[in-house]
Amino acid sequence: MADNSTDFSVENQEKLKKLMAHYRCAIMEIETKFRVLDEEFSLRHDRNPISSVSTRLKSHESLIEKMKRKGLAVTAENIENNINDVAGVRVVCPFTDDVYVLAKALTRQNDIDVIRIKDYIENPKENGYRSLHIIVAVPIFLADETRKMRVEVQLRTIAMDFWASLEHQLRYKKEIQNEEISGELKSCAEISADLDRRMNSLRNSIIQ
Amino acid sequence: MADNSTDFSVENQEKLKKLMAHYRCAIMEIETKFRVLDEEFSLRHDRNPISSVSTRLKSHESLIEKMKRKGLAVTAENIENNINDVAGVRVVCPFTDDVYVLAKALTRQNDIDVIRIKDYIENPKENGYRSLHIIVAVPIFLADETRKMRVEVQLRTIAMDFWASLEHQLRYKKEIQNEEISGELKSCAEISADLDRRMNSLRNSIIQ
Amino acid sequence: MADNSTDFSVENQEKLKKLMAHYRCAIMEIETKFRVLDEEFSLRHDRNPISSVSTRLKSHESLIEKMKRKGLAVTAENIENNINDVAGVRVVCPFTDDVYVLAKALTRQNDIDVIRIKDYIENPKENGYRSLHIIVAVPIFLADETRKMRVEVQLRTIAMDFWASLEHQLRYKKEIQNEEISGELKSCAEISADLDRRMNSLRNSIIQ
Amino acid sequence: MADNSTDFSVENQEKLKKLMAHYRCAIMEIETKFRVLDEEFSLRHDRNPISSVSTRLKSHESLIEKMKRKGLAVTAENIENNINDVAGVRVVCPFTDDVYVLAKALTRQNDIDVIRIKDYIENPKENGYRSLHIIVAVPIFLADETRKMRVEVQLRTIAMDFWASLEHQLRYKKEIQNEEISGELKSCAEISADLDRRMNSLRNSIIQ
Repeated sequence: MADNSTDFSVENQEKLKKLMAHYRCAIMEIETKFRVLDEEFSLRHDRNPISSVSTRLKSHESLIEKMKRKGLAVTAENIENNINDVAGVRVVCPFTDDVYVLAKALTRQNDIDVIRIKDYIENPKENGYRSLHIIVAVPIFLADETRKMRVEVQLRTIAMDFWASLEHQLRYKKEIQNEEISGELKSCAEISADLDRRMNSLRNSIIQ
Repeated sequence: MADNSTDFSVENQEKLKKLMAHYRCAIMEIETKFRVLDEEFSLRHDRNPISSVSTRLKSHESLIEKMKRKGLAVTAENIENNINDVAGVRVVCPFTDDVYVLAKALTRQNDIDVIRIKDYIENPKENGYRSLHIIVAVPIFLADETRKMRVEVQLRTIAMDFWASLEHQLRYKKEIQNEEISGELKSCAEISADLDRRMNSLRNSIIQ
Repeated sequence: MADNSTDFSVENQEKLKKLMAHYRCAIMEIETKFRVLDEEFSLRHDRNPISSVSTRLKSHESLIEKMKRKGLAVTAENIENNINDVAGVRVVCPFTDDVYVLAKALTRQNDIDVIRIKDYIENPKENGYRSLHIIVAVPIFLADETRKMRVEVQLRTIAMDFWASLEHQLRYKKEIQNEEISGELKSCAEISADLDRRMNSLRNSIIQ
Repeated sequence: MADNSTDFSVENQEKLKKLMAHYRCAIMEIETKFRVLDEEFSLRHDRNPISSVSTRLKSHESLIEKMKRKGLAVTAENIENNINDVAGVRVVCPFTDDVYVLAKALTRQNDIDVIRIKDYIENPKENGYRSLHIIVAVPIFLADETRKMRVEVQLRTIAMDFWASLEHQLRYKKEIQNEEISGELKSCAEISADLDRRMNSLRNSIIQ
């Protein structure tokens, strides 16, 4: 199947390089939007709703692998049209309420298109994973044109983030198949969710 | 004169704090625009047109002083309507051509309003100062609204920047009135401008 | 009491400014020690034992207040001899084991003097606070001399850090005197400690 | 010649990875020393003697190439004993005097061994290149031991740095063989050196 092969032509490689640069720009735009919101909210509430922001760009290797699984040629056009999470921004917040406040403020901005929202906080994954995932398209201002690029934004609390990073480390060890361990991991996710709810209430009981 | 007094009411102080937060946001937006342009140009030409970006917010003290000189009360409204350089972004480039390429790319963006351009490279100040100054208005995306804020963008080469920082240090020493020193300073500005032209030509002779 | 007054002489102010600069240098040295340890451990275990490092320098105001409480004049000599936490470095780790591994690696370095260790993880404070506090003296290399400066190092897990920051916010609200709230806060500290233990075990069960 | 081959054994690869981590640590230590000196001098003179610090680690590829040229096997031991510039720190200063003040302050520190000094400011290279190069050995504090690692420190003025980066870009273009261009480049180096001397004098005439 011709479409499934990698196109090593100089032209395609140049286009891919350019596409990745555009995704890097989109990441910067989203980061700036959150820095602006953090500035605004910290002024209003004397407290920062954002604990940290980190970003990642899908590696060339995992892009190729993902395109192969989809049976598509690795071209700039195919990547842009078929993959939503080439660019990723992760926003970690102290409290669950912060997650939703930021999500609402981002998605209502009039230069942002919301492609899809998945709320794994309301409906955690089977293994216990919680986070709010939002795919958006954001404009980037290049020298000669303005383009809209897709970015996957993940919002979560500090506790969700810590759990997810442990789960991620364990996933790449064989022993995770072990039922005892995956059970304990899920149980930790539940305690962690409960703790988040109680800390969130504690804070609210005092702020109001 | 009532208008000329400082208004220490809580309401006015709150408005001023908010205004300054909005200027900080505007600075972030402009910085991001230059980071995006740097990303794009470095891809095209395998070379970064930006050597460094620095930012500054006018201090409360110098805002008060400036408003007094203008005979205006220090209110958020008056500051926003009468002062163009509350927020400042300085972009330092290796070559003179980079300065103009970036200026053109910024000013043609459709979300940017250009308020004023002063080209002190083409027409240096009497003391030898060179730089390109552009006042723009840039949108900032807050939680509930989008506002346009003014920012003064200064673009200059590394050599112009070095000269300007020496001149700035000397200005606050009395001895600068000394004619010998101000003559030597101006002479250094001219050598520096000549060097910029020759380095710029050298690079161009090879790139083409 | 003469000793209790603030000495506004230029000489004393100069000495205070210099002292604070030296504390800033001590903070840099300790930060670098942790960045080096993070580099080394991440190589050995393919995982970073440090989640974040933050630093703080006691403000002039709180130094003056603390000296007054001690009935001492605010001189550089008195501050250096009587206050251990002018300079503070906080190291946040994913797991409890990381806290102790880093503490051991720091305190055994031969250029470090350990002044005091308080283990609030083993023995939490009455309100539920947990952290490992270590006062060390670290050499700073100035242009003409080498001096040893004291720094308070606080090591804690992500969960301890989140709890502590909520407790800190609440402490400055009157309602914290409310017994219901302080009881709930303490209960959250215990759940959080339990979660830390289980996550730590989970990780260890797999690493070995 | 057996020694000249690359040793791909797991053991050797592990040692190489560890060696590179140690060089990264050495870079951090040297960076911190300069940040401390910058802090100290800016206090004394109300002016920062350091404009920027950048660092680099020799890539695996260029290490292999360099070892081949020397006819040596690519082992950790051989690299450590035979290459002085695996780790590099570049310090850019406004004025020529700053270069020498910092160099003196670094080299007299009692934990630093000075391996070699090459003064290309006093004696520029044939093509016009100016900089002060110092090879030092600096202790790094690991969890279980203290080691001394070599670092190449390059100190130069802003003007020297700009010239060097243009020269570096041109070197990789064929046309640089062109005598006209290399003559013009050298002539720019001389104007630049003259400008440095005049700016340095201007500043001194006022500071004293």
